[in-house]
Amino acid sequence: MNATVDSAAHAAAHAFRDYARATPAQRAQLLREIADGIERLGDALVTCVNRETALPAARITGERARTCMQLRLFADLAERDAWIDARLDPADAQRTPPKPQVRSRLRPLGPVAVFAASNFPLAFSVAGGDTAAALAVGCPVIVKAHPAHPDTAALVAEVIHAAVRKYALPPGVFSLVADSSREASVALVRHPAIMAGAFTGSLQGGMALWRAAQQRDEPIPFFAEMGSTNPVFLFPRALAHDAAGIAAGLHASMTLGVGQFCTQPGLIFLVDDAASRTFLDQLAVQVDASAPGAMLSPLICANYRHAVGALTLVPGVRTLARVDVAGHSADADDRLGGAALFATDADTFCAQRDLCEEVFGPASLAVLCKSPDDFARCAAKLPGQLTASIWSGGEPLGDDSDLLWTLEQKVGRIVFDGFPTGVEVGTAMMHGGPFPATTDSRFTSVGTRAIQRFVRPVAWQTPGNS
Amino acid sequence: MNATVDSAAHAAAHAFRDYARATPAQRAQLLREIADGIERLGDALVTCVNRETALPAARITGERARTCMQLRLFADLAERDAWIDARLDPADAQRTPPKPQVRSRLRPLGPVAVFAASNFPLAFSVAGGDTAAALAVGCPVIVKAHPAHPDTAALVAEVIHAAVRKYALPPGVFSLVADSSREASVALVRHPAIMAGAFTGSLQGGMALWRAAQQRDEPIPFFAEMGSTNPVFLFPRALAHDAAGIAAGLHASMTLGVGQFCTQPGLIFLVDDAASRTFLDQLAVQVDASAPGAMLSPLICANYRHAVGALTLVPGVRTLARVDVAGHSADADDRLGGAALFATDADTFCAQRDLCEEVFGPASLAVLCKSPDDFARCAAKLPGQLTASIWSGGEPLGDDSDLLWTLEQKVGRIVFDGFPTGVEVGTAMMHGGPFPATTDSRFTSVGTRAIQRFVRPVAWQTPGNS
Repeated sequence: MNATVDSAAHAAAHAFRDYARATPAQRAQLLREIADGIERLGDALVTCVNRETALPAARITGERARTCMQLRLFADLAERDAWIDARLDPADAQRTPPKPQVRSRLRPLGPVAVFAASNFPLAFSVAGGDTAAALAVGCPVIVKAHPAHPDTAALVAEVIHAAVRKYALPPGVFSLVADSSREASVALVRHPAIMAGAFTGSLQGGMALWRAAQQRDEPIPFFAEMGSTNPVFLFPRALAHDAAGIAAGLHASMTLGVGQFCTQPGLIFLVDDAASRTFLDQLAVQVDASAPGAMLSPLICANYRHAVGALTLVPGVRTLARVDVAGHSADADDRLGGAALFATDADTFCAQRDLCEEVFGPASLAVLCKSPDDFARCAAKLPGQLTASIWSGGEPLGDDSDLLWTLEQKVGRIVFDGFPTGVEVGTAMMHGGPFPATTDSRFTSVGTRAIQRFVRPVAWQTPGNS
Repeated sequence: MNATVDSAAHAAAHAFRDYARATPAQRAQLLREIADGIERLGDALVTCVNRETALPAARITGERARTCMQLRLFADLAERDAWIDARLDPADAQRTPPKPQVRSRLRPLGPVAVFAASNFPLAFSVAGGDTAAALAVGCPVIVKAHPAHPDTAALVAEVIHAAVRKYALPPGVFSLVADSSREASVALVRHPAIMAGAFTGSLQGGMALWRAAQQRDEPIPFFAEMGSTNPVFLFPRALAHDAAGIAAGLHASMTLGVGQFCTQPGLIFLVDDAASRTFLDQLAVQVDASAPGAMLSPLICANYRHAVGALTLVPGVRTLARVDVAGHSADADDRLGGAALFATDADTFCAQRDLCEEVFGPASLAVLCKSPDDFARCAAKLPGQLTASIWSGGEPLGDDSDLLWTLEQKVGRIVFDGFPTGVEVGTAMMHGGPFPATTDSRFTSVGTRAIQRFVRPVAWQTPGNS
């Protein structure tokens, strides 16, 4: 038993009853106060995040704005009670036997364990979307900090503690577990007081915690979002229409944030013709011209470099562009990731399952197909994904498209004439997808649908003849 | 690999695309035709069910009516597209960068494996609630028949096949697997084409299949509803008001259908006073006067007799009534179950976890508490339940009731001034509950909320500047 985890879990269990009974206005007030508090941290937060993650200030302020927007979006949802799905089947005293009244609504599951992500130190961390969704519906939250940004975690946690104190809520409504050991994570998932878990990170880490959640005496839902290669399908019509624009957009999407997004487009499917070759030449020039970027941690960078190095050795895979990181400033060297572009053909792709694996960083693999009909064959080989993007050149694929049907079974979000990065936070967003993109295709970790991970229906029945 | 299972699963996978694209009207038409077809079977179905299950004709016709009502309820839901939860976040071309339009809705998960229950040969079997819910949203269904009523399963399956043929749907929309081996069940759950499973039955059977579902290369949701002891809390005020009426109602609920319901009230909590002792005396007289009933199978009856026999040996547990089955007709003997009533005190109950275990049949255990405050202490010891019932004597318990809060964490449905049997099928019903009542407290197997087990959101994103 881990004493820190045990103490936080007991405090959460103790706080649950009062917090579940807090009014919609009280939960909304808490979430808004957290957003305000994060904004009040000002430059101190930006400086801290930058020091710990090497993310540039513009990205950090953007992510901060998104984080506060998320908190306020969930505050609105909480305040309007817009998630409770209240239902009522009326009584009928005339029926034999008399029909009772049954009403039901969604209620909070209980204390939720949130595992902070490395790549979003604000929006998927201590006061990120998982925390906001759980707090909105009345679940206490325990966040396990990510070891890559402990000071950022502590700063944001203190904002939440202050908000909890300000509104005189039980302290156990929120706890931060700073212990970053694997043992602490497993202890948290296995603690009997924890009723659900939410994780964003690697397949290995997510599956280990998911297994621990299933092996409890009382299994609990554990939502792991574990990454994706986010295939992009470029139809000849689209390239004929605007090859330069698509190349520029794709380059920006694949290298955004040094490629450290679970929606980074890692696979690009094209038809093997002259236009595609010209397009890839254009894209390769842009990739080669990309400045290397500091990645989130030396470990992430080492993994990225290893994965890119391995791709160069795969028979049938050609290296179209690869940014050399030698010659850059020595003190940043062990974090510098350079973009890369590879190409292969559809048969090689379909025969080698490991070419579907996510490379976390600014690398993409182009797959040259014999015809657009080949796209569906390649799509069928894909494991579950968060997203797929289709550039069809303005001509809709039609409801009977093999590609659209295949992709619907493989992904949570289909992007038309766009790129997968830049996940909008709203009521309709689906940021999830079939295994192994996540452990449960029925749920999203972004947008207001995310609350459905942390609720359950309860029914109350009263007599029909009373 | 089981050839029958493999063939059915491939047919379902093949049918999925066309069936998912069937119109709401087509899915509704199919469900209504199945209901009509079951009704057209007439007495032949009643005779068959009676021969296989020993259930009386009145019960069978009642269950048939419920089954057809369920099919038509889900037909209405399908026809109105009332389950799709469509959402749209509009585009904003003025934003920098332009905000895309995101819309999302629920879509069918894919082929669903349904495991028929022994105790509801119609309503939780081949064309039962699970099948109706899955077909309503566009999922093909494979039903694994229950070995206790194979001819009933075949009759109803033929009705579904005929309906599928009548509307020229792909044959794989529905298959029956008659092979009742454990190996066939596991093969079905593990088949890569199966995307979800639904089961009603024992804890042992449900957990074995649930584990198999988690151990797949691609884990799938598996919904096992595994039974419950359905505690009833009788406050002194209620007994003071109508002890005779409550005793009669409780006796009817505990012995209904020879107690073979997952909502059978197996635990009765009372305050240890003179009124409760009088009440239990009254109830014991009625239990002793109950005619023994033929149970669903010799195995179920043997398990029941064993469990009752074991209860008589538990120190601290008194036998208040026990119907002797000797002297009844010899040919029915190995199926005859006699009602039984036991009593213990709260301390004994709280100290022995096995007293919380379900006895499948017409037996209940009364637990005598020191005061109504003791009810919450006992409730806290309960494992997850489908239901709890409270007779408070007309005085509401209040939102700050320890008992109500504790029960909300333990059960899916709280019944006031009523008994747990007689599950209403409607839009509000929650027939599910925390583990081990089911494998997932977030879902119900009865009522229209049941479709949420078989759907997932998919989002489509289009540019904001187009």
